[in-house]
Amino acid sequence: MEEKASTAIAGISHDRDSIINLDHGDPTMFEPFWKEVGDSATVVIPGWQKMSYFSDPRNLCWFLEPEFANEAQRLHQIAGNAVTDDRHIIVGVGSTQLIHAALFALASTEARQPVNVISAAPYYSMYSGIADFMKSGMFHWAGDAATFNGDDNFIELVCSPNNPDGEIRHAVRGNEAGKRVHDMAYCWPQYTPMRHPADHDIMLFTVSKATGHAGTRIGWALVKDAEVARKMAKFIEMNTIGVSKDSQVRAAKILKVIADGYELPDLEAGIKFFHFGRWLLANRWQRLRQAIKVSGRFSLPQFPSEFCEFFKEHAETYPGFAWLRCEDQTIEDLEVFFKTLNILTRNGRQFGVGPEYVRVSMLDRDANFDVFIKRISSLE
Amino acid sequence: MEEKASTAIAGISHDRDSIINLDHGDPTMFEPFWKEVGDSATVVIPGWQKMSYFSDPRNLCWFLEPEFANEAQRLHQIAGNAVTDDRHIIVGVGSTQLIHAALFALASTEARQPVNVISAAPYYSMYSGIADFMKSGMFHWAGDAATFNGDDNFIELVCSPNNPDGEIRHAVRGNEAGKRVHDMAYCWPQYTPMRHPADHDIMLFTVSKATGHAGTRIGWALVKDAEVARKMAKFIEMNTIGVSKDSQVRAAKILKVIADGYELPDLEAGIKFFHFGRWLLANRWQRLRQAIKVSGRFSLPQFPSEFCEFFKEHAETYPGFAWLRCEDQTIEDLEVFFKTLNILTRNGRQFGVGPEYVRVSMLDRDANFDVFIKRISSLE
Repeated sequence: MEEKASTAIAGISHDRDSIINLDHGDPTMFEPFWKEVGDSATVVIPGWQKMSYFSDPRNLCWFLEPEFANEAQRLHQIAGNAVTDDRHIIVGVGSTQLIHAALFALASTEARQPVNVISAAPYYSMYSGIADFMKSGMFHWAGDAATFNGDDNFIELVCSPNNPDGEIRHAVRGNEAGKRVHDMAYCWPQYTPMRHPADHDIMLFTVSKATGHAGTRIGWALVKDAEVARKMAKFIEMNTIGVSKDSQVRAAKILKVIADGYELPDLEAGIKFFHFGRWLLANRWQRLRQAIKVSGRFSLPQFPSEFCEFFKEHAETYPGFAWLRCEDQTIEDLEVFFKTLNILTRNGRQFGVGPEYVRVSMLDRDANFDVFIKRISSLE
Repeated sequence: MEEKASTAIAGISHDRDSIINLDHGDPTMFEPFWKEVGDSATVVIPGWQKMSYFSDPRNLCWFLEPEFANEAQRLHQIAGNAVTDDRHIIVGVGSTQLIHAALFALASTEARQPVNVISAAPYYSMYSGIADFMKSGMFHWAGDAATFNGDDNFIELVCSPNNPDGEIRHAVRGNEAGKRVHDMAYCWPQYTPMRHPADHDIMLFTVSKATGHAGTRIGWALVKDAEVARKMAKFIEMNTIGVSKDSQVRAAKILKVIADGYELPDLEAGIKFFHFGRWLLANRWQRLRQAIKVSGRFSLPQFPSEFCEFFKEHAETYPGFAWLRCEDQTIEDLEVFFKTLNILTRNGRQFGVGPEYVRVSMLDRDANFDVFIKRISSLE
């Protein structure tokens, strides 16, 4: 990660040769909203507070700050994206740690064979690495869920809206004995129309994509089964002995500001985070689709307009990533092509498909997005 | 962890039947110092700051906040506990994540056999679980370093001062081809005399035990070899995509307050953290040794007085845990015995030795420590 990132520093100057890094989904585009909000989103922690390992010793997730849990539940109710009643909340160091925790909890420690971990291609590029990098005997990566022909001993990772392509996904292997983890990092009103609250066994969310605070490293899981929740908490205990309280306190504050913006009528009308995010993404997607149309070399997924229960109107889908496909036969590898434009993207091969695809972050700062649009618009 | 913890809540009332939890090393005894310090240790983070995943893209540890790295180096120079020149600093979610990262970095991904992880008994009770709980094919727990008779394919975890017994440790298998990780969580002036700065290949520290801020979950490693450091950073990227920036910012502030207390002469003389910690631990150890002497049923390790380069005088050793041995033949299991006194301790078996030993935290709040002393003093 550091090499690509280090070159991106140059991008700040925005000259013709600057390198623009849209390889990862660093959600810095939300910074202007939080600058506008000002002091109400500032977190203050005195030196003597939050020193203990323990947040809530009576909770099976003993390292979960109750104020964070409350604000997460509150925001789910406002957004209408997930059922929270009768769920255990497990907080993690980003949703990444929670994917590890879920695989650990769903795999059997007694099994002779590792359980197969699958996801429909194109799948999030980190899934295979997460499943395999520790060479665990409990689980291993088995690739594309659509072509998987093993037995019922599997865990399907269902990402919806999907990273990289923004599609609404359902489990490919839905009616079988296998287990499922629903990664819902992008299931928020700025990205996709809110249908009805999802009600899956394990649902993962992250502050990174919900509010833009990637640096806080806070994710959370809504988990139906107490035993699975307990095992996930056990994983986090063995892995990191809990999760930063400071970040949980900060995340609680951030979620509260968003919720207050919708629930407290005496606040200024401008403090509506999902409206801001949607407006900015709509603008970016419009500019990108226009530039793509003009160039004629690439294509983008199309999404049906749907009724959004949050905005109470028909709404478009504006994914956090553009999943670009190359329609120019003279270009073999789209990532390499974009590199010649000094734009770093992520190769389709990392998502289980071909090099005619790349994933491009739509969440970077305005200045970098502008350069990206300028460069693809100026292609001959 | 949660069951034992939940019962500890009752300890706040301090009545005869209250359960006192000294099983884990929750370092809450340092709270009064940070209350006394007041506002200078308060961290303030506006909503729009520290949002990105990246802290320092040019560093191989791209998620390391430079201000935290600077303050950690500064405090090492003041304490004189470790060489920091020409070292890479890797920040982790507590030193627990860094133990995982170090095992990952030192084990070969190509090896057919997992590398043996060893540590001299009594060893920190989490080492075996950390090595084994993911059933990794890269490494596995092989027990007591003193009795290990395998080949050179090993990683020795060297904890010094040792958890649980406070001993100064050197690698048991010092001159062989195996690799070593030095866990120096308790190598600070409040616990043990500072000799000369340690100069090992991988040295692990944690804010929890250095300053008492366990809830921030910040640890750091000083690593000599760039390739090992890079692999440790890779582990943390795959495991949690970095480490909370909020906690790093807070930890930097906390370390700075301690360092300023020694380096800025215009501050009040009272703000000397290591002096406070030493004074409080000395008082507790004196009371514990007196109570143990009166009861006649238990024994404690003895430590030689040594010259401390930090305090510039001969100093005693005051470990963060009391490693109690039962000398009463009628008691078979010391943990069970203490349970009858409503005191939760950790059984010697968890440290690779017998149930005649227990580990007792010396780092809890005053009120709980007082109850502990009262109960063992009143034994008939």
